[in-house]
Amino acid sequence: MTKPLRLGIAGLGTVGIGVVKIIRRQAALLEARTGRPVVISAVSARDASKDRGISLSRYAWESDPVALALRDDVDVFVELMGGHEGPAKAATEAALAAGKDVVTANKALLAIHGQALAEQAEANGQVIRFEAAVAGGIPVIKSLTEGLAGNEITRIMGVMNGTCNYILTQMQATGQGYNALFEECGKLGYLEADPNLDVGGIDAGHKLALLASIAFGTKPSFDDIQLEGIQRITLEDITQAADMGFRIKLLGVAQRSARGLEQRMSPCLVPASSPLGQLEGGTNMVVIEGDAVEQVVLRGPGAGEGPTASAVLGDICDLARGLRIATFGQPAASLQDVPAAQTGLPAPYYLRMALQDKPGALAKVAAALGDAGVSIDRMRQYSHSEPTAPVLIVTHKCTRATLDIALQALEASDVVDDAPVALRIEEL
Amino acid sequence: MTKPLRLGIAGLGTVGIGVVKIIRRQAALLEARTGRPVVISAVSARDASKDRGISLSRYAWESDPVALALRDDVDVFVELMGGHEGPAKAATEAALAAGKDVVTANKALLAIHGQALAEQAEANGQVIRFEAAVAGGIPVIKSLTEGLAGNEITRIMGVMNGTCNYILTQMQATGQGYNALFEECGKLGYLEADPNLDVGGIDAGHKLALLASIAFGTKPSFDDIQLEGIQRITLEDITQAADMGFRIKLLGVAQRSARGLEQRMSPCLVPASSPLGQLEGGTNMVVIEGDAVEQVVLRGPGAGEGPTASAVLGDICDLARGLRIATFGQPAASLQDVPAAQTGLPAPYYLRMALQDKPGALAKVAAALGDAGVSIDRMRQYSHSEPTAPVLIVTHKCTRATLDIALQALEASDVVDDAPVALRIEEL
Repeated sequence: MTKPLRLGIAGLGTVGIGVVKIIRRQAALLEARTGRPVVISAVSARDASKDRGISLSRYAWESDPVALALRDDVDVFVELMGGHEGPAKAATEAALAAGKDVVTANKALLAIHGQALAEQAEANGQVIRFEAAVAGGIPVIKSLTEGLAGNEITRIMGVMNGTCNYILTQMQATGQGYNALFEECGKLGYLEADPNLDVGGIDAGHKLALLASIAFGTKPSFDDIQLEGIQRITLEDITQAADMGFRIKLLGVAQRSARGLEQRMSPCLVPASSPLGQLEGGTNMVVIEGDAVEQVVLRGPGAGEGPTASAVLGDICDLARGLRIATFGQPAASLQDVPAAQTGLPAPYYLRMALQDKPGALAKVAAALGDAGVSIDRMRQYSHSEPTAPVLIVTHKCTRATLDIALQALEASDVVDDAPVALRIEEL
Repeated sequence: MTKPLRLGIAGLGTVGIGVVKIIRRQAALLEARTGRPVVISAVSARDASKDRGISLSRYAWESDPVALALRDDVDVFVELMGGHEGPAKAATEAALAAGKDVVTANKALLAIHGQALAEQAEANGQVIRFEAAVAGGIPVIKSLTEGLAGNEITRIMGVMNGTCNYILTQMQATGQGYNALFEECGKLGYLEADPNLDVGGIDAGHKLALLASIAFGTKPSFDDIQLEGIQRITLEDITQAADMGFRIKLLGVAQRSARGLEQRMSPCLVPASSPLGQLEGGTNMVVIEGDAVEQVVLRGPGAGEGPTASAVLGDICDLARGLRIATFGQPAASLQDVPAAQTGLPAPYYLRMALQDKPGALAKVAAALGDAGVSIDRMRQYSHSEPTAPVLIVTHKCTRATLDIALQALEASDVVDDAPVALRIEEL
């Protein structure tokens, strides 16, 4: 089998250039492992004149990614442009229609249009591979889809946005507030053009939707994810959590039960001594729990030229080796349409609120919680100079639905400023 | 593709029964994921009358595993007997000769006979899969062989014997000595029939040989591994290491360089705050470092019915899905015969020795080290009631070859009782 595998690479940003570099540097290694040469036929990007640090003149250039996808000398369309509409979608669809396999790093495209694209691919006998779309260099899609295929997955969790984890761990390490670190991330180039993709949890939510689909045999359903960003986390929250033996992480959790499919991407408290609690900086981590394997934890760089290109190359090597699998691990037509769980499993919650300094205020808070059926494990009120007093509460286990009733009552009351912050304490 | 994949399972111990249970419990899930039924045609074990907790009467019974391997209604021979000679080897060879694929959990068989078996399999167009042979439920073989195939692997490390890690972490947690915990492990059933397989590092060494072969494209060469067990680790070593910010782990390390292939399985000091340092109890961890991916860390249960069966099922699902790959990731004929590195990369070492209590003794130790070219970073002598004084030394970086010259001089001297303990401080 010496016929080369011929790639067309659309998108020559950090990841695209990383892929080109590996294919040049490791040509012999890739051929030894896959049994055939892996070559680039053509590339495409918006700006042909930009200096990308390496010469690309040996490859054909297409200004239109759709034209790239349709080239006769392209077997695999490698989509590294990003964006869930526009050229990325059009070119991916064109590639599949033209009988090409697709390798992509595009989490948004698949989280939103994955079902339709998987159906199109399978109708044509093509495959879509997307290891690089989730958790950078960690081979989590492969581990979940193939390595753990004998498991009924019971829960999948992940810290999958390095920028958020950087901000949260730096708040703790340096004592700086959220805003200062958000600004620092902007300067360091750690933020997406729309920062809400990072700090609002959307980027990580896209990744969770893909993992949940594979784990539970369901159609990817990004719209059903309960999304909450890290923007309201204060230094006080970080410090309080640490005092109680926890860390705050932007944690994705997916579970399927009789209640439906639960998908949450939100700041949670996790035990400081757990692998998730110990995760520092921009590193990603995914925890997979299955009925047979118990718990597997995968950790690695969530972004960057080398790690993301490594994931893209993993998919390319699979295709070169003839390893072909359905997009989400089983035929797209067999993926189920499971409703979102209306309420998750009960958990303890951490609450922070700003209490008006007037007689009976704390009693009203306690009453609002008690009336809803939320019982208090610990409560602390701090001395203060502002007109409001910071109050922290850890509840006993309750459902989010029950908690929300209490939170609504608190918001409607005249003793609490703003909506209280409520963070789930995820049990590991 | 509704033709079932038909298994013959040889060996009905913990893992074998675990595999049977998953195939029964998750029949629908396995079929949904692989596109075909996964069924058991026949089983084999030494004792047909033993109560294994589940009824096996629906499967044909073969008392001879070779006969099982040759059955017409078996597509895949699942070898879960263990042992690197005898029936496991004979039946594996028979299965390959008869055109069957093989799934095995047998690290010893592959570490010692892997090259010959891989050649036999490939000559017949068959495959051998062995995810369960290394690190239990962690999908490390798949991650390394496929997910990270775009990387030139620069180093691979692992804590892959749960019993050793249990002993070492319990020494620290409970203050008990090695012998007491070794006895406890015996009572808990944590030890192999020949405990030296565990505490002597042989079992973990088998696993390292398999990882090294895949990582570096070399023939598996268990005989070239520098093996050292944990039997000489004292509570004092554990405590001292902790005081210096380290933990002691039975750590496998493989690296390939111009000096050759370095494979070590030995007790090492690792930073307490690193993922390896934080690993407690029987859990396994493998750290893979590649030129593109930087560092990926995989963690999970290293043994047990469910986790090991999960790994076996991963391989079975691959075969059911038609995912076929060369045993060690590239054709066996292309695996290189790389000589063992005569000396590893320089590292700091931790030394412990029992010093005779006489004038000039410490000077002789210092001289022996200095003469060999080993310089001392830290040294401590403790007050003592025995005739010898415990002395602990942390050296600056040196090669093991250099250190060995110093150690030989110390042993030959009249001031040190027994051979000093020397543990490498592995840099992460």
